[in-house]
Amino acid sequence: MLQISLERDAGRQGRPVYRQIADQIRAQIAVERMTAGSRLPPIRELARELRVNRDTVALAYEELARVGVVEATVGRGTFVAGGSVVPGAELAPFEPALSPLAERLLEIERSRPSFGSAREAVPMHALIPDPALYPADAFRRVLNRVLQEGGPELLLYGGPQGHPRMREALAARLRGEGIDTDAREQVLCHGASQGIALALRLFADPGDAVALEEPTYNNVLATVSGLGLKAVAVPMSEGGLELGALERVLERPEVKLLYTIPTFHNPMGTTSSLAQRRALLGIAARYGKPVIEDAYEMDLRFEGRRVPPLAALDTDGLVVHLSSFSKSLFPGVRVGALTVRGRLVDALLALKQASDLSDAMPLQAALAEFIESGAYARHLGKLRRVLRARRDALLEALEEHMPDGVRWTRPEGGYQVWVELLEGIDTSELLTDAVGAGVLFAPGALFNHDGRPSHCLRLTFALADERALRRGVAILGEVVRKRGAVAGRRADRIHI
Amino acid sequence: MLQISLERDAGRQGRPVYRQIADQIRAQIAVERMTAGSRLPPIRELARELRVNRDTVALAYEELARVGVVEATVGRGTFVAGGSVVPGAELAPFEPALSPLAERLLEIERSRPSFGSAREAVPMHALIPDPALYPADAFRRVLNRVLQEGGPELLLYGGPQGHPRMREALAARLRGEGIDTDAREQVLCHGASQGIALALRLFADPGDAVALEEPTYNNVLATVSGLGLKAVAVPMSEGGLELGALERVLERPEVKLLYTIPTFHNPMGTTSSLAQRRALLGIAARYGKPVIEDAYEMDLRFEGRRVPPLAALDTDGLVVHLSSFSKSLFPGVRVGALTVRGRLVDALLALKQASDLSDAMPLQAALAEFIESGAYARHLGKLRRVLRARRDALLEALEEHMPDGVRWTRPEGGYQVWVELLEGIDTSELLTDAVGAGVLFAPGALFNHDGRPSHCLRLTFALADERALRRGVAILGEVVRKRGAVAGRRADRIHI
Repeated sequence: MLQISLERDAGRQGRPVYRQIADQIRAQIAVERMTAGSRLPPIRELARELRVNRDTVALAYEELARVGVVEATVGRGTFVAGGSVVPGAELAPFEPALSPLAERLLEIERSRPSFGSAREAVPMHALIPDPALYPADAFRRVLNRVLQEGGPELLLYGGPQGHPRMREALAARLRGEGIDTDAREQVLCHGASQGIALALRLFADPGDAVALEEPTYNNVLATVSGLGLKAVAVPMSEGGLELGALERVLERPEVKLLYTIPTFHNPMGTTSSLAQRRALLGIAARYGKPVIEDAYEMDLRFEGRRVPPLAALDTDGLVVHLSSFSKSLFPGVRVGALTVRGRLVDALLALKQASDLSDAMPLQAALAEFIESGAYARHLGKLRRVLRARRDALLEALEEHMPDGVRWTRPEGGYQVWVELLEGIDTSELLTDAVGAGVLFAPGALFNHDGRPSHCLRLTFALADERALRRGVAILGEVVRKRGAVAGRRADRIHI
Repeated sequence: MLQISLERDAGRQGRPVYRQIADQIRAQIAVERMTAGSRLPPIRELARELRVNRDTVALAYEELARVGVVEATVGRGTFVAGGSVVPGAELAPFEPALSPLAERLLEIERSRPSFGSAREAVPMHALIPDPALYPADAFRRVLNRVLQEGGPELLLYGGPQGHPRMREALAARLRGEGIDTDAREQVLCHGASQGIALALRLFADPGDAVALEEPTYNNVLATVSGLGLKAVAVPMSEGGLELGALERVLERPEVKLLYTIPTFHNPMGTTSSLAQRRALLGIAARYGKPVIEDAYEMDLRFEGRRVPPLAALDTDGLVVHLSSFSKSLFPGVRVGALTVRGRLVDALLALKQASDLSDAMPLQAALAEFIESGAYARHLGKLRRVLRARRDALLEALEEHMPDGVRWTRPEGGYQVWVELLEGIDTSELLTDAVGAGVLFAPGALFNHDGRPSHCLRLTFALADERALRRGVAILGEVVRKRGAVAGRRADRIHI
């Protein structure tokens, strides 16, 4: 009944065989050689007749089903669908099949919240340092100088470990934090994000599980997914990870590591205590599980006493320390670093080499010079003063404008405050109101592993100055009150 | 008999439980509380007694066996080994377990050939453009200017797709190659190496297979391994991929894509014909398998007529085109690019985002300006003249110094020549002689999927100038003659 002729040696104008099959069946349906309800030959039979693989025919039928030309019924077969088919209408342009992991990442991207494009809205959603505070000109001059002095050699592949001077400069800073390390134990990378991916791959293969805080940095969830790893949630409280839950997760053999942000947590803004850190390391040591310590905002403390990083307390070689200059200088420098020992250095170098060979040496050399000259320290001094003033303005405004029962954290550094609204408010829904009213925030669902609704939200004092923060929180207070009233009424109805 | 006390809440000084067990057993053997030949308690029993997981005890026993303190006999149990045990001697420092894929990458790194550190040796082994030819100063001035004009905004995260001006400049160049594309279809990346990893992940998940040429670019073998993919070899001849073999590989459902270097192949230096390219695309189309076209040296043709890239011949949206400036400008610019269509753009952006968020915009903006100003074209003109002269010198020297029966390719662009010695010579062994004599090359085994011996080698005219190339080939000729005589004698013996 079906008349199909295949151009197997398709050459220049060739289409994949399954597309040729799908196109010809569709054409015959269009001219009513096949009518609605009539049955397509079984896959096996057509495959034999055309001398092609069964998968090829199956793919053709799937494509036809996808565009609604046929309908497949399990166990019964595939039938021409009812309804009109436009003669000559084209199938969607051919695209090669994406891998399931790439499809999953696409899905994650699609589910990111939309912040609209309201130019006037107060930007309290983004964790991006304020360009108005970048020492752009000073850095440019340093970069120009190191390129002049370094000459062409600085434009070679620099090797996977990164520029020696930058590793020296970083090791010196880390020793200042109490970490016993040197330049040989630093592996520089292309921003902290690449550092996270490399550190995960150091211990976990696709199919393995990794323990992550919940809530946690949203991009790490995408990175974990994209690598084919399973994220296991360990709940956060203001004091840090819940240790009982951590123990139950780390004892599972399929869980290969813990990723944690102990200082100026993202999204919570909290810092765990020394006692909490020691307890966490004790649990990790008991099960021999490595800990990735994301210290991306370590240079941004503007209040209170420093708590030693996990890497300074680690006596078992379990901690991989991750640092970054994206939040303390600017993201465009793309310098992150992993601090590890022994074989882990070699393994990281092999992973880095297989990922992108080498970073751009000019930027690393310039950053080293910028640090050594004291310019970075001066910049940090100024930045911390600005951040403290912004945090104060934000907390005061929250005090003034938030309804009773709303709680928030008090960060001693970094850029973010975690706000807990009344239960029953879904902050993803609230965001729609907020965008309309002129204020942006990051809804808590973004930081949940499964994206489930949350009554929490993250506010940043990164891009907005004090005046804007006060205005933003006043607007947010209004939005919360309105939505809270509605939520209250809904709750009433439920109770009746 | 065994006395073991565990510090479970190990805290600051804590060691993993398995290490505590291993250490204490070892201590008791050292003081001869346990003597050679005595049996350790069964794993199950000790685990129950200590109230720990059986895996923990098994790990302790494995560690003790590893350092030779005990011996395990399947089915019989674990026994204290004979021989002296130094009291108080430490076990190896604790290190968390690497993932199997990280271990595999370490293994690959360890198996790379050693080129010694002979400073005087003629460097014909590396595919790195000559720093003496970098337009370092001109680029520095452009970079300084774009940073001055761009200000702090250029130091923000640039987004995963890359700088719009750079994408425009690249799209214009690609249109010049006959590829119908625009700026929206370019996804910039951190060098071609990252581009390869991203393109592989677009279509292949861990466990999947990918078709690669053999011989092929050695780093792609490490990248494939590190991603948990299986490499399936398709043999190369001078004309390109063997098409019959390609067809048999691409029809296998677990093979998700083909990675190929059709122009100035690495390591062979060859360029496939238009007919060969059309046939290759026909086969890929027949099975709907995407093709990654690595065009890393596309700007380096110094002789003969341009053959259209696969991407210019592709009518099915199957080709992912990869370009780079590492070989035509300098590696330190770290700008590569993938050219794709439709959903593939979005999927690549999601993958790039999950890998490292964003590249460094200053370098991309400077490269765009460098191209638009005509400086890149002027640089290419000069570079091509130099490369042609070097290639000529290399080929002449080969003609003069190589024994009869040795064959080599004649590249029309790029940096590399493939030399086929007499069968029976293992060029990995030959390298030892060559390093001693003062010349470096890349042995063919490096480019074989399984690293098996090869009688071929790659010579580059990248870092060595004409004079050095002539000297290097003269030395190599001597080395080959000597080794050939030995190989000949060996072959004789075998035949007798």
